[in-house]
Amino acid sequence: MKLICNQRVFSACINTVQKAVSSKTTLPILKGILIATYGQQLKLVGTDLEIGIENYIDAEILSPGAVVLSSRILGDIIRKLPDADIEIEVDDNNTTTIRCENSEFTLVGQPAIEFPELSRVEEEEGYRLPQDLFKNMIKQTVFATAVDETRPILTGVLMELQEESINMVALDGYRLALRQANTRNSHNNKAVIPSKTLNEINRILLEEENTDVEIFFTDRHVLFNMNKIRVISRLLEGDFINYKQIIPKEYKVRAKVNTKKLLNSMERASLLAKEGKNNLVKFSIRDEIMNITSNAEIGKVFESVSIELEGEDIDIGFNSKYFLEALKIIDSEEIYLEFTTSVSPCIVKPVDHSNYTYLILPVRLVG
Amino acid sequence: MKLICNQRVFSACINTVQKAVSSKTTLPILKGILIATYGQQLKLVGTDLEIGIENYIDAEILSPGAVVLSSRILGDIIRKLPDADIEIEVDDNNTTTIRCENSEFTLVGQPAIEFPELSRVEEEEGYRLPQDLFKNMIKQTVFATAVDETRPILTGVLMELQEESINMVALDGYRLALRQANTRNSHNNKAVIPSKTLNEINRILLEEENTDVEIFFTDRHVLFNMNKIRVISRLLEGDFINYKQIIPKEYKVRAKVNTKKLLNSMERASLLAKEGKNNLVKFSIRDEIMNITSNAEIGKVFESVSIELEGEDIDIGFNSKYFLEALKIIDSEEIYLEFTTSVSPCIVKPVDHSNYTYLILPVRLVG
Repeated sequence: MKLICNQRVFSACINTVQKAVSSKTTLPILKGILIATYGQQLKLVGTDLEIGIENYIDAEILSPGAVVLSSRILGDIIRKLPDADIEIEVDDNNTTTIRCENSEFTLVGQPAIEFPELSRVEEEEGYRLPQDLFKNMIKQTVFATAVDETRPILTGVLMELQEESINMVALDGYRLALRQANTRNSHNNKAVIPSKTLNEINRILLEEENTDVEIFFTDRHVLFNMNKIRVISRLLEGDFINYKQIIPKEYKVRAKVNTKKLLNSMERASLLAKEGKNNLVKFSIRDEIMNITSNAEIGKVFESVSIELEGEDIDIGFNSKYFLEALKIIDSEEIYLEFTTSVSPCIVKPVDHSNYTYLILPVRLVG
Repeated sequence: MKLICNQRVFSACINTVQKAVSSKTTLPILKGILIATYGQQLKLVGTDLEIGIENYIDAEILSPGAVVLSSRILGDIIRKLPDADIEIEVDDNNTTTIRCENSEFTLVGQPAIEFPELSRVEEEEGYRLPQDLFKNMIKQTVFATAVDETRPILTGVLMELQEESINMVALDGYRLALRQANTRNSHNNKAVIPSKTLNEINRILLEEENTDVEIFFTDRHVLFNMNKIRVISRLLEGDFINYKQIIPKEYKVRAKVNTKKLLNSMERASLLAKEGKNNLVKFSIRDEIMNITSNAEIGKVFESVSIELEGEDIDIGFNSKYFLEALKIIDSEEIYLEFTTSVSPCIVKPVDHSNYTYLILPVRLVG
């Protein structure tokens, strides 16, 4: 195998596939990246067996072949080379020589045959989403997945693909995030995608409007195709919770509030809340003012935020962390907070559209 | 005590004195910052008993007083407040109320009387240095101090203050850094300043040319006065090594090389050097070329850098870490590398001036 490629392009490609490589793996070959010629292109692959990332780049292929090289060392070396042509040559023992201007590296490679093949997902009957929209949908849901593994299905995000819309839902027993988008799809499907996969996809997705990601499913895997980059991940097995029955249809109290002002006040209140237990902050909603208070041994805080209120006064307590995380990812200038009683869930919704719903359970106030 | 000050100014001031506060202290009062009125100014003080930082800011003092507040909590709160006026009020129990727009914090304070006084250093017979020059002198020496405490004196930097110059010297048994500056001083002195103190000073010093730092010594302490900020530190006790006798006066081989090109090549070579033992890189100096090589189990590297050579060919080995750290802080475009034999020290010097000398011991090559 022998080829010439550009340092910057090669380095960016290594950086992409490295996201799937785990340094903690017990299988040494998985610490490597597969580098293989593919027609007149170069293909790089990294995988931890749960998720696999393939990236194709243009290269001048002088003779075909494949090799596996240490992901960490290769990445470090290529990053440090000048922005110039790099020549890569692999001999029959997988010994790899990398030449660039006045530098020559010789690395011990491993045989490509030992590198595991990624699961096959046929690119038929897929779904299409603009990359920037998908990025936003991930951002607004993935943070609400469960961290602990006691109910593995909750560590993923449910994707419901329907003829006229795509819903993404995450919940962890304390809060729920639901993002909806209108799309046209030829058929229905649903699947639960691991949060780790979505976090990596989020880093790869572009913020430009005019490029789409294509999504294909099998019973056990999902493929995301983003032009030159393909990500293949296993799906989580099992049934997701029937989330629709958790979301209340009605409310008794509704407060309209400026998102940024509430976020700032909550951030300050949480400085003391996190010193105490439960991150507890209390809301006292009265007429045109919402007071936020929190107590800890070291001191207390009192914040007030102006609101527009429909309905009666209410006192209710929350874990500030769950509120803050939602306020940070809502782009709208104003939100509604909808309450029924001080022991029933609060719904957070943007004022200007209805594609996002966040539910948060209250903390019962004592006394 | 009651006063009004600006959020941005107060926050920057907390940030400065926090550098002296250690979160690991066993004396609870030292986790706090002393806040005291001082005429029509506000004084903040942080200390870990080794180093103390005082910072004065303008404030509207409504009634005098002093209190000690948790450094971490106070810093977090003030940083999160809006850029507006902050009112601070302390009652007889040291309970402190902080008001700013729609926020009100009440914090438990500690009595100022319990806060340790910083050591006194009279501001007489001092030395003056432009802040940007002192910053540069610290940067070019402090990295070469010893990390381990087996010889405590080597964890500091020797300052030699002479009538026409100031020298700063650091060494750790493997390398030595000497920075000289021409200044006019009224008297001679020398002292060894802990590297931690210099690192904190470096973060406080400005990069502007026209402000000076004033330096005052007692037998056991040093005071750095930078306008509104005063840093007081203990000195290291004991005699510094007679460093002048370590630096060779002559050389047999001298190579002139581009600093940045050598740095880049060394950084790449060290990627493999650090995989092996000792960070070993080998220089082969021949005519107009210096080859840099390194070997590890996973592979090897060959770099070549063009040089101008005076004297004979030489082969010599180094710990790449000690070379890299010096190359990173030399501002000159070109340097001289001066050698005598392959087992004697190498001297690194800027080509364009003589105020910096770096000495590095070679690693004996086997075979």
